Amino acid sequence: MGDSAALIVAASEQDANLYYATRFWAPDPFILARINGKKILVMSDLELDRAKSEAQVDEVLSLSKLQEQAKRSGAAHPGFSDVLDLLFKERQITSLRVPGNFPIVLADRLREKGYTIVPGKEPFFPERMIKTKEEVAAIRETQRLTEEAVKSAITVIQQSQIKNGELWLGGQPLTSELIRKLLHVTLMGSDCLGRETIVAGGTQACDPHCIGTGPLKANQPIVLDVFPVSLKSRYFADMTRTVVRGKASEKVKKMYRAVQQGQEIGFKKLKAGVDGKEIHDAILKYFEQEGFPTGMIGGRMQGFFHGTGHGVGLEIHEPPRVSNLSDVMKAGQVVTVEPGLYYLDAGGIRLEDMVLITETGCENLTTFPKLLELN
Amino acid sequence: MGDSAALIVAASEQDANLYYATRFWAPDPFILARINGKKILVMSDLELDRAKSEAQVDEVLSLSKLQEQAKRSGAAHPGFSDVLDLLFKERQITSLRVPGNFPIVLADRLREKGYTIVPGKEPFFPERMIKTKEEVAAIRETQRLTEEAVKSAITVIQQSQIKNGELWLGGQPLTSELIRKLLHVTLMGSDCLGRETIVAGGTQACDPHCIGTGPLKANQPIVLDVFPVSLKSRYFADMTRTVVRGKASEKVKKMYRAVQQGQEIGFKKLKAGVDGKEIHDAILKYFEQEGFPTGMIGGRMQGFFHGTGHGVGLEIHEPPRVSNLSDVMKAGQVVTVEPGLYYLDAGGIRLEDMVLITETGCENLTTFPKLLELN
Repeated sequence: MGDSAALIVAASEQDANLYYATRFWAPDPFILARINGKKILVMSDLELDRAKSEAQVDEVLSLSKLQEQAKRSGAAHPGFSDVLDLLFKERQITSLRVPGNFPIVLADRLREKGYTIVPGKEPFFPERMIKTKEEVAAIRETQRLTEEAVKSAITVIQQSQIKNGELWLGGQPLTSELIRKLLHVTLMGSDCLGRETIVAGGTQACDPHCIGTGPLKANQPIVLDVFPVSLKSRYFADMTRTVVRGKASEKVKKMYRAVQQGQEIGFKKLKAGVDGKEIHDAILKYFEQEGFPTGMIGGRMQGFFHGTGHGVGLEIHEPPRVSNLSDVMKAGQVVTVEPGLYYLDAGGIRLEDMVLITETGCENLTTFPKLLELN
Repeated sequence: MGDSAALIVAASEQDANLYYATRFWAPDPFILARINGKKILVMSDLELDRAKSEAQVDEVLSLSKLQEQAKRSGAAHPGFSDVLDLLFKERQITSLRVPGNFPIVLADRLREKGYTIVPGKEPFFPERMIKTKEEVAAIRETQRLTEEAVKSAITVIQQSQIKNGELWLGGQPLTSELIRKLLHVTLMGSDCLGRETIVAGGTQACDPHCIGTGPLKANQPIVLDVFPVSLKSRYFADMTRTVVRGKASEKVKKMYRAVQQGQEIGFKKLKAGVDGKEIHDAILKYFEQEGFPTGMIGGRMQGFFHGTGHGVGLEIHEPPRVSNLSDVMKAGQVVTVEPGLYYLDAGGIRLEDMVLITETGCENLTTFPKLLELN
């Protein structure tokens, strides 16, 4: 029996694990093998030189040279599996640990060649969840730029005029699309990329993944959920604020206070060693007590029907989760705290901050104020 | 023996096939099964309502309901494999056609449950390569907005001042980063998302995936390769222009003419039924004849060492390829024509247009002029 290696074949642009392990950003799939603690990349001619200068690995091999070698060994059109076969045979590797998202077609070819393929448990690199100082600084910086963008968006909503219950600005209706574009353009000016940013008013926000469309209305909650990635550091941030231009109803005000208190429960309880489920359940229970039940109402999920939080880093959603599934927090993790309440007769309220878990508690990385009514 | 189904489990934000088949955009993985020609989605509570109203499928099922059902059948913590098992057993499905990038961990679990998993050949949906009128219109629109952004970038380069061989604007050096940001912000203002946009001067452009950094210089070629996606239609465009602020050397001028002629070879030859390899080889041969060889020179790949073109659609790189591998063109495909020449003693020259393949030839979707020197 031979030795074991870790193997990832992906485009690092789409695979945070591969980017994490190599710090090399590429749009097309390439090979990373970790053999005896050494990281080996196999790169196409197009990326070879850049990988040699940029990738944080031990060795960079040429795909085309290995393909030539595979041809001499009899492969007519050598693909990744033939190249990997060469690489592993030379190094007496017979067993491969791969991420759960490893492509089946390549796994099957390697199995045909006699390799044992073992999908690793998630997270593939558990150390990725624990942020270094540099990583926390990167997340904090993305958050700072996000807050600047959210500030300009909220200022525009605040400055809008109310005409027949709709928000107007500069002679046209103020729409979700306009605020979203303002956020995206402002973020891009700071080298941050916002996608699917949520600017959802009224009942639209009751569908927490509806990004929002059309004219925004006065006296109704508007949810702004902004989660860009820095194109410089590759780290995400994530925040949500809910505002009302005009007057909020009593129900909306009560929902807002409950959601804010829900967040406080999270902030108080979050620390290393605590189970996220305990926090999520406590918030859910608190909402029930305050008269905000969760479940199917009139054929639609209403109340608080998503998780309390998720890890943030090279992906916008990464482990750990603060949800109805057990997941014990560790120092160095960065998670969101984002309870929400959604009722079709009132609209949606969500508040979201990011916190850094420590041994003794948590540190809020978000500094943006929480203010419901804009007048 | 039971029947067969097609199965994709992915986040449509990261999987163009899934978006193509459902027209539903979601950041988290969900299930699409095509059974007897009917498309069935299985969605989390979070996405259920939005999927019902937006997805172009025949049926949308609730993941949590199926999970409840699986629990009653004995699964302690029902995952996707348990839910799929329920779905397929009820419908007498035993064999599953999946895309090549199907996650190994789920494939293994389904195989353990007795299913035959057959990775489908790429492209998984061959019809995705053949663009409908609507798809061509979407690509054309993204291209139009791309050209507007490139126009502003080139105008800024043209308006820059030359000081000691460097480009200056408004009292500061004009850098790759500034031009890239201008492109990204302009594109975002048109709801287009540019990433890794290349603004590479001098020898930086000899590494075709180097995006370019630092001050731009006069009298040296600057490669602008811009390939954004529309956030509205989800379709990409792709174009490259090379400019010199100041005077181009004789070698650079000759390279530029050769690359432009290389493109013309592509435009003339491209039509339904032609093998892309024939076109790529003809351009490579033409370059050789003009005194521009390709290969390792001084330890670095130089000359024309990437493919001539690639399909463009919901992905920036999709089939077919116009390269050194055989691939026969079909009417309705949209491909780039982007020959380039790269020499360390001169810099990089690349020109790229997108064309629509027709029965009798090809139609250029790019209207942007080609002008080397900006004075």
